[in-house]
Amino acid sequence: MPRTNPGRRAALADAAVALLATDGVHGLTHRTVERAAGLPAGTAANYVRSREELLVAAAERVVDQHLAAMRRIDRTLDVSGSPEPLTELLAASLEDAVTTSRERYLAIFELQLEARRRPALATALARLGSVATAFTADEHATLGLDVPPDAIPLLVTLYGGALFSLVNAPGDVDRETTRRLARAIVRGALGADPSAPPT
Amino acid sequence: MPRTNPGRRAALADAAVALLATDGVHGLTHRTVERAAGLPAGTAANYVRSREELLVAAAERVVDQHLAAMRRIDRTLDVSGSPEPLTELLAASLEDAVTTSRERYLAIFELQLEARRRPALATALARLGSVATAFTADEHATLGLDVPPDAIPLLVTLYGGALFSLVNAPGDVDRETTRRLARAIVRGALGADPSAPPT
Repeated sequence: MPRTNPGRRAALADAAVALLATDGVHGLTHRTVERAAGLPAGTAANYVRSREELLVAAAERVVDQHLAAMRRIDRTLDVSGSPEPLTELLAASLEDAVTTSRERYLAIFELQLEARRRPALATALARLGSVATAFTADEHATLGLDVPPDAIPLLVTLYGGALFSLVNAPGDVDRETTRRLARAIVRGALGADPSAPPT
Repeated sequence: MPRTNPGRRAALADAAVALLATDGVHGLTHRTVERAAGLPAGTAANYVRSREELLVAAAERVVDQHLAAMRRIDRTLDVSGSPEPLTELLAASLEDAVTTSRERYLAIFELQLEARRRPALATALARLGSVATAFTADEHATLGLDVPPDAIPLLVTLYGGALFSLVNAPGDVDRETTRRLARAIVRGALGADPSAPPT
């Protein structure tokens, strides 16, 4: 029966995400996660029984972190008066992805490749797509942006792909690059950035 | 001293690329590659001394295959009379990536993530970017397309990213999706598809 100390569970999941980013999927074992979390040998087995469960726990953690990051950006950024509100939002998200959240995205890409070999992991990661799509639609509604629903998959594909290119690029990515890319994604998916209605 | 039987070297590299796609970076060892290539134990050590050299050999192979695939698409597709020549080209390349060449792209993504941990591999893969950029510029010149040079990195980033999203999507990808995406990439990077001049 898995134990339910939420602090330890979270510490193990956080350590798993960090290890995925630095060492890849095969750097992740019960032992390496315990060590990275500073917990005694044997602790991880109380929470996850197999390596696959460990990968699934990491996937659930990155999905939660992703949603939290999107909410944080949304709260801290006021784009309602901007002539290009969607471009501003995407540029801020890309900027966050190549700085603060780079480790999380690297972990996500490692998990995505491994998910082709593990259906349980694919199921856990599928929530990433649905969470992102729902959040995006909700955000457009809040901003009063007139984004056609069928443009959202295109926007998510272009945005998710650009993330992979940027996060894996060698070295730092400057703000001018993320902004140009955000504008290109919006123009590509929608033709032009729908302006927010006057408030 | 490495042996130089080109047939065996190619067979080992092909087996390495296939193994990367199915089993990931950690499925790749001298022994698994020999087995997959149907060659006797010990053969691989005559060509690559370490696991890192094996990964670099696989990277060199995918870069060569990528260039060959671009040339093949270029030869077989006549877009000079199309109103959207660049969209046609990108749609054909995306279509090839999610069908015939899917295995190669999965191998590339595995190598890209591993390259963060191995500078020698990063160097071998860097050729992928320069080859793609040079080929793209050359192709635009041949087609007489008026693509501003500074739009090419944007085009390559959007295209490379879309590839990651498509190739890792569960299930098959239909032609309508690749075409919409190709059009969005061109619109995103260039504003509109530059038409080919009348021939």
